[in-house]
Amino acid sequence: MNAPVKRRTDPERAQNRRNQVLQAAAVCFARSGFHAASMSEISKEAGMSAGHIYNYFDSKDAIIMAFVDLHAEDVLMQLGELDSRDDPLQAMIDDAPLHVDKHLDGKKIDLPLEMFAEAARNPKIAEALRTADYKVSNRFRPIIKRERERRGLAVDDALLDGRIDTMVSMFHGLSIRGIQRPDLNRTSIVEGWRVALTALLLT
Amino acid sequence: MNAPVKRRTDPERAQNRRNQVLQAAAVCFARSGFHAASMSEISKEAGMSAGHIYNYFDSKDAIIMAFVDLHAEDVLMQLGELDSRDDPLQAMIDDAPLHVDKHLDGKKIDLPLEMFAEAARNPKIAEALRTADYKVSNRFRPIIKRERERRGLAVDDALLDGRIDTMVSMFHGLSIRGIQRPDLNRTSIVEGWRVALTALLLT
Repeated sequence: MNAPVKRRTDPERAQNRRNQVLQAAAVCFARSGFHAASMSEISKEAGMSAGHIYNYFDSKDAIIMAFVDLHAEDVLMQLGELDSRDDPLQAMIDDAPLHVDKHLDGKKIDLPLEMFAEAARNPKIAEALRTADYKVSNRFRPIIKRERERRGLAVDDALLDGRIDTMVSMFHGLSIRGIQRPDLNRTSIVEGWRVALTALLLT
Repeated sequence: MNAPVKRRTDPERAQNRRNQVLQAAAVCFARSGFHAASMSEISKEAGMSAGHIYNYFDSKDAIIMAFVDLHAEDVLMQLGELDSRDDPLQAMIDDAPLHVDKHLDGKKIDLPLEMFAEAARNPKIAEALRTADYKVSNRFRPIIKRERERRGLAVDDALLDGRIDTMVSMFHGLSIRGIQRPDLNRTSIVEGWRVALTALLLT
């Protein structure tokens, strides 16, 4: 009777260990920078031996790929939640304070800025980012299309591309703005976001 | 008769040499990354001896500070140009294709993404970015305020902060979006930008 439980438990345990490594990697990337963080620093932070880490990830590149996947999974989960709301477009606008807080909070697991800089030099990372974004866009786009159709708004492909790219730019850029201006007024920027999101989603 | 000419020429020559180093540094940051680019790599790229570079910059940090200043000067010049237009707010919207091209073009001298990541760890860089942004904001804000007043639109401080922070986020984020999606459709995103900028500037 125990066998099926064990089969379920082991992958779960491996998954937990993997997540433990990714959490540690996030801490090390933030502290030392993407390049300087070594496998040995990450293993120390995770409280594992370097040898043990190599059971789960065979290189820093592999950790980075898993990071990109984990981030995409997180976004997909949020989009599933958004899709279940009564009025997803209005919900995005109403949730502006949450989006702003999330992107200004450097402590959450997010893609470090350096990963994008690195993508310009490392085709494997570039490919991982592109693949993850296709998954996210393929989930996001039909929600926006359906809800705009329901409202009788234009839904041609070029328009949807432009609206989505502009919104995603806003999300990415807010993390940078938060670094540039740590004294940024959250209440004010939430209002700016509401204005821009309303125009992009509901016109 | 030559003395005054020489006094004018020498600082000019030094300035040219400094710019030559900054151009070389931009190439090295893009190629090797912000951390890995060394003073010796930068001097090789600039076609100068390492000793000669130290006449102009005493450390990589000093090059970075000069980079931040140069970028702020460039933005201030663009804002001066914007200020001289007949209708600066409408000009910003009409110029959306130029803004989009500029931020998708990684080759121009811009602040590398890694600089923002580094600012979270290096208080000197954080301070330089903040100081540069104050200069830029102090030039940008009165233009928007004056032109909104002229149109009878709201100009309270919180509103202006939020609109500016949202626009700056869009600018920053577009560089990231361009890395994430190299196949991004420029015509579509220009339309998205027009929609967002119109709402942020003219409502």
